[in-house]
Amino acid sequence: MLQSKLFTKTRKEGPKDEVSRNAELLIRAGFVHKDMAGVYSFLPLGLRVLTNIVALIRREMEALGGEEVSLAALQEKNLWEKTGRWGDIGKDGGMDNWFKTKLKNETELGLATTHEEPLTNILKEHVHSYRDLPRYVYQFQTKFRNETRAKSGVMRGREFLMNDLYSFSPSEKSHEEFYGKVKEAYGRIFRAVGIGEHTFVTFASGGSFSKYSHEFQAITEAGEDTIYVHRGKKMAVNKEVMTPEVLADLGLKEGDLEEKKAVEVGNIFSLGTRFSDALEFTFVDEAGQKKPVIMGSYGIGPARLMGTVVEVLSDEKGIVWPETIAPFQVHLIELPKVHEQASKLYKKLTDLGVNVLLDDRDLRAGEKFADADLIGIPLRVVVSEKTIEGGGVEIKGRTEEKAEIISEEKLEKLLIS
Amino acid sequence: MLQSKLFTKTRKEGPKDEVSRNAELLIRAGFVHKDMAGVYSFLPLGLRVLTNIVALIRREMEALGGEEVSLAALQEKNLWEKTGRWGDIGKDGGMDNWFKTKLKNETELGLATTHEEPLTNILKEHVHSYRDLPRYVYQFQTKFRNETRAKSGVMRGREFLMNDLYSFSPSEKSHEEFYGKVKEAYGRIFRAVGIGEHTFVTFASGGSFSKYSHEFQAITEAGEDTIYVHRGKKMAVNKEVMTPEVLADLGLKEGDLEEKKAVEVGNIFSLGTRFSDALEFTFVDEAGQKKPVIMGSYGIGPARLMGTVVEVLSDEKGIVWPETIAPFQVHLIELPKVHEQASKLYKKLTDLGVNVLLDDRDLRAGEKFADADLIGIPLRVVVSEKTIEGGGVEIKGRTEEKAEIISEEKLEKLLIS
Repeated sequence: MLQSKLFTKTRKEGPKDEVSRNAELLIRAGFVHKDMAGVYSFLPLGLRVLTNIVALIRREMEALGGEEVSLAALQEKNLWEKTGRWGDIGKDGGMDNWFKTKLKNETELGLATTHEEPLTNILKEHVHSYRDLPRYVYQFQTKFRNETRAKSGVMRGREFLMNDLYSFSPSEKSHEEFYGKVKEAYGRIFRAVGIGEHTFVTFASGGSFSKYSHEFQAITEAGEDTIYVHRGKKMAVNKEVMTPEVLADLGLKEGDLEEKKAVEVGNIFSLGTRFSDALEFTFVDEAGQKKPVIMGSYGIGPARLMGTVVEVLSDEKGIVWPETIAPFQVHLIELPKVHEQASKLYKKLTDLGVNVLLDDRDLRAGEKFADADLIGIPLRVVVSEKTIEGGGVEIKGRTEEKAEIISEEKLEKLLIS
Repeated sequence: MLQSKLFTKTRKEGPKDEVSRNAELLIRAGFVHKDMAGVYSFLPLGLRVLTNIVALIRREMEALGGEEVSLAALQEKNLWEKTGRWGDIGKDGGMDNWFKTKLKNETELGLATTHEEPLTNILKEHVHSYRDLPRYVYQFQTKFRNETRAKSGVMRGREFLMNDLYSFSPSEKSHEEFYGKVKEAYGRIFRAVGIGEHTFVTFASGGSFSKYSHEFQAITEAGEDTIYVHRGKKMAVNKEVMTPEVLADLGLKEGDLEEKKAVEVGNIFSLGTRFSDALEFTFVDEAGQKKPVIMGSYGIGPARLMGTVVEVLSDEKGIVWPETIAPFQVHLIELPKVHEQASKLYKKLTDLGVNVLLDDRDLRAGEKFADADLIGIPLRVVVSEKTIEGGGVEIKGRTEEKAEIISEEKLEKLLIS
């Protein structure tokens, strides 16, 4: 893409009311627009990153045998009253973060904060026998949560894209097996987006049906959670369950743990029969017995993940995108008097299938370099009279200090290998 | 995909409260689930069709030079008050179909029914000079509209996916040129999804800045609009503007027109400076003069389009999908005792990149054929002892009466040509 055709411009400062580092950088670089606290719109560069994250997660969901759906946000109360989650502070886990609204006939509606109830209700219509199980269903869908505070940029949205996966299994054994597979898939996702070494499987509070749930917590000062990390065992304990009994249960000693601020980038949860009991979702097993379906739910917020990557990897110059999710692979910078050469190289690379942003704007070199650092594309390639004299183009990785001049042929090989 | 792994099952009847033919068929075939009137969730087959429609429209948006964004649904009132569209019955086009909600601090919010205001507000930050224009920005985003009645299935959602495109031009001339290109692109889209011959460019009411807007109306008894069609000129007039003056203006005679029920599958609208004036969106032209930006907006509802295709093309046996948007290209039906042969053919075709749904379920042939007709995949391929004896497989187009037996090699050639 030609940068002259990109409608967004970079800016020197974020909005005055923005207190989060991830949002400040994403706004300055033109990835997102802040509509209000906790509500961000995704602009062309930001949507590209989000789309890459979604594609990466979707591959894992498909490999898990997931079937993709897209459920409605608008909800009526009947299902949610059965599980006790409609009221603002309902019994047994009622949720106080609904946005409620109304039809013209005064029927009260809510905007879904999660989708256990409606999806269970749908599956109930299609699953009747052990032959229909297990089923794994996922979506990428916009959730609405009426957060009291939303000061963590795109890491805590009042409206945000969520990848939620739900499992419906015929037995505890079948559930545990799938739960283990999701845990591994989540680990792969966080490694793929470049925060693997900062992310720890963290024991957190369970529910009526399981002692613990597992959170994936990424260490960052911008996080709202506090966790206790055991680096050797690559695991952690959330402060909310940090008691001598839990430590003993997990075989951990307090002295071996480090206290860290962290953000929950993923959560996997064994739901047991909490929802299938309340919504009467049963199946007939091999022996002809009616049994409740065993459920699990699993969630990753792609925009939160994007914000976390910015928090964890950015430096004083700007954002640092890992190749896997970067908006473009190459930021090609055209300096004065080499328009033809730069255009030819741009065409050659895009024809090879490389995603290139060509900075063809009429700006000083220093401004272009500063923008490239702020935007954070992994590889910067400069074409100038000097590089052409030197035999090619100048390349520099976003986090590298030194640039080097290589031939165009070598660049092509580097990019398509 | 193996049909045994698809969680949805077909059903003989739609829900009792469903009065629309498109929703009834889509529910019976397992494409969508009805959550309430005007609110549908998309199940795996339905999401596949929707995704195909989105991809097809996105190609046209990109070819128009569009830049993709994803704006927030949650809206504060400030921008909308400036354009007079926040109040339930505001002045100058105020909208009475908002869903309103509240933050915990009682700040009133609304769910966007359209995005002229927030997008203009964003562009204002980035566009200052004639060099920054024109800009074309589009999205695929969920809109919420508090419809009083919603009885047309997925053709009129209270929550629905919308492809909205907005143009920002430096002059009327530049605007008109783009407007013409969008009109052509929309025509290509409706032809590509199989309703081209049923769809007419229809003159409808304009606004302060243009005499008419153009609707794309597809003729169907399920439509909520009434139009007057001139088949020869391939155009129509919406009843709402059907006056002797308008007919004279368009050079039409009442006697040449047919009255038809139709559904608006697309709308293109010249906005003039209505929004740029209200939101003070100006640019500096070549002569150094401050001028308001000329805007246009353009919309297609992918789910409405899906519903329209079902209304227009389905027959008494079920849905008929055009190849371009079908959930699968081939419905491969395995009859008893040929599991190995069917699996091999399934693997061969999927390896060739063909999207195949293999009906590997333990059901009678008649049930499988009825399901295939209901689901509406363009090509049915049957593998049975009889077809193998006959030298291959039996193929039948969804709308064809007669089947024929051809060799597997011929089938492969047919599918990858």
